[in-house]
Amino acid sequence: MSGREFFTARTVADALAGFRPGHRTAVADVTLADALHRVPATDITAPGPLPGFVKSTVDGYAVRAADTFGASDGLPSYLDLLGAVLMGAAPDVTVRPGGCVAMPTGGVLPDGADAVVMVEYTAETMPGTIEVTRPVAPGGGLVRADEDVAAGAPLVSGGRPLRAPDLGLLAAAGVTRVAVHARPRVAIISTGDEVVPPSTTTLSAGQVRDATASALAGLVTDAGGEPAVAGIVSDEPGALKTRLTEVLPDADLVVVSAGSSVGARDETAGAVAAVGDVWCHGLAIKPGKPTLLADCAGTPLIGLPGNPLSALVVFGQVGVPLLWRLAGCETPPPAPSTRARLSRDLPSAAGRLDVVQVRVRDGAAEPLFGPSALLSVLTRADGYLVVPEPSTGLDAGAEVEVILYR
Amino acid sequence: MSGREFFTARTVADALAGFRPGHRTAVADVTLADALHRVPATDITAPGPLPGFVKSTVDGYAVRAADTFGASDGLPSYLDLLGAVLMGAAPDVTVRPGGCVAMPTGGVLPDGADAVVMVEYTAETMPGTIEVTRPVAPGGGLVRADEDVAAGAPLVSGGRPLRAPDLGLLAAAGVTRVAVHARPRVAIISTGDEVVPPSTTTLSAGQVRDATASALAGLVTDAGGEPAVAGIVSDEPGALKTRLTEVLPDADLVVVSAGSSVGARDETAGAVAAVGDVWCHGLAIKPGKPTLLADCAGTPLIGLPGNPLSALVVFGQVGVPLLWRLAGCETPPPAPSTRARLSRDLPSAAGRLDVVQVRVRDGAAEPLFGPSALLSVLTRADGYLVVPEPSTGLDAGAEVEVILYR
Repeated sequence: MSGREFFTARTVADALAGFRPGHRTAVADVTLADALHRVPATDITAPGPLPGFVKSTVDGYAVRAADTFGASDGLPSYLDLLGAVLMGAAPDVTVRPGGCVAMPTGGVLPDGADAVVMVEYTAETMPGTIEVTRPVAPGGGLVRADEDVAAGAPLVSGGRPLRAPDLGLLAAAGVTRVAVHARPRVAIISTGDEVVPPSTTTLSAGQVRDATASALAGLVTDAGGEPAVAGIVSDEPGALKTRLTEVLPDADLVVVSAGSSVGARDETAGAVAAVGDVWCHGLAIKPGKPTLLADCAGTPLIGLPGNPLSALVVFGQVGVPLLWRLAGCETPPPAPSTRARLSRDLPSAAGRLDVVQVRVRDGAAEPLFGPSALLSVLTRADGYLVVPEPSTGLDAGAEVEVILYR
Repeated sequence: MSGREFFTARTVADALAGFRPGHRTAVADVTLADALHRVPATDITAPGPLPGFVKSTVDGYAVRAADTFGASDGLPSYLDLLGAVLMGAAPDVTVRPGGCVAMPTGGVLPDGADAVVMVEYTAETMPGTIEVTRPVAPGGGLVRADEDVAAGAPLVSGGRPLRAPDLGLLAAAGVTRVAVHARPRVAIISTGDEVVPPSTTTLSAGQVRDATASALAGLVTDAGGEPAVAGIVSDEPGALKTRLTEVLPDADLVVVSAGSSVGARDETAGAVAAVGDVWCHGLAIKPGKPTLLADCAGTPLIGLPGNPLSALVVFGQVGVPLLWRLAGCETPPPAPSTRARLSRDLPSAAGRLDVVQVRVRDGAAEPLFGPSALLSVLTRADGYLVVPEPSTGLDAGAEVEVILYR
């Protein structure tokens, strides 16, 4: 390895804090059906109160609460049945003292009433007369007209990806289109004379099919982005620079899986330097040290290591948060995780983030080792654990948090 | 509530164990670009070994390991440089005793060599002569031709949703189409005379916009299904039965958000009983008791409670695992979660599953209460915790696992 290569090395923490996109993606309206996990540009407020009317939460009778005070099995209140409220319709009757109106759950409280007594505590002892055996307090058995949401209150927050229940609340408020950030477009370029398309049936000696692009496309989709697989570029001088120039205008983020040999990495670094400003060359992460970050006139570029496992690890740690930021979300949604006990000692160098693939069995996290060139390590893993930058390692038996793949 | 209504009540555990779909969705080939989170019908095995050749994992020199034994800074081995291996090409040279060949990371090991010594431990002291200052063991600096995956070994497992790295391994093996289960089609029917489409600008008294269908569609999408919002059906006798008959032929699962009043629930139960066999009527879950499960000639049907929060809770507990099973996956992917300390006592009835919405702040889980008719409880929550069926409640300060919304 040349000394030059890691001259501008940085920590992952530095990269997350300092390598920030210079832009956010454009904002456009989408329907609720297209809004799941999209990021609203701003808070969206309720046009009116919800539910919008004083609503019964039980089946029973709308009453004046005072008419039920002191009611018991031994000494019931007797109320005149004045009518019934129908679902979805305005009441056509007013509750006067000593009267009551039959109410379905979800019905509109009639004028004059201030509570709904549950049907369980009533009986129609004679036609037209309702016996009430429990008192109900004013406000009992109902929700206020603005109890779910007040007019002007936020329904959902800008910057937080929309979850399924959010879509329900927006629908309830009559908001059927939402201004959200566009999915970041991610151009994925593979490089290397040895790399051939996955559809290649028979390989010549030394050829490898492009694994990284397909896997990266999946990670991009999971992070709310729109992958654009931009093909394989040879190690021929100038070829990568040409391809970068072509893809940059239509990309919010460019990802290059660099060749794995020193020569190929140097070629990548040169091409990137020709189209942008290199922010760091070398990241204190294992695996993934030969990572390159650059700013191409506001479009971030990540030069990933050549081997697929390292490339995917780095993209998960650096690319995924960057993608969410491009879409206007500073705090990515939580990932699945589990607590487990480490099955063996795990040494690490201070100042370097270690990402260790693990299998989890019966509460034990077993690190999977092997040459980092092996992609099957990733597919055999249930998830990974992170040994943070300051740590010099973890002891067997330590409780660790494993981020689970899904 | 009528006693009849909960005559065939069951626990959630019973439902998960016993209310199982009678079919799986059809299997069809998709491209890797469409395969993310889809469920392969069977194991997919490697057509050949990976990487498929003996591959260098370092930049350096291919050697006969025996030629480096005993090499040190004080007493280096000197080897004749016989040529160089190029990326993606077969070596055109054989390593004879006392010779070596320049190797890039990822190159093919030439005949005669059995190890690669890292460039860091070498120097080209004279043109054509390489000085080696560290010994390398046979097999050092390389991976075997089948070290990533052996021919015939499983690349991915049937029944486990495909993750991004799986797509990479399949691509590496030249598998570009995968036989996966179709996304289960979920017909979502809303009922109730009071329910109007979300696009309704001005509500009449007592009307509510359909919140549940939009939110359910999101949950269905999250669980790998394909939602088909099938509109709003009035409480008019016969209307629901007619609609059910229409949607059943094209659905793998039918979800009905029943009206919330007793009358509307009875109407739903009657319609469902007319088109299928009721498996249970009443579920021991809070919120969500008035849930109905039925088998319509092999197509499962879930009759959800009328209020949106309860409906979404029940769908998450019962509908989501059912959807994954329909797609051939017995163990749904893990959900994000976090451990927190309960901020207050949480009573519960034994024999009933309680699903409690919580906010999580600084490691404390604060239950959000309020009438279950309020959808905003769900959107304010960070997640929920489950008080299991045998429990009679949890004490303040207890460590709980909160399932986080994403």
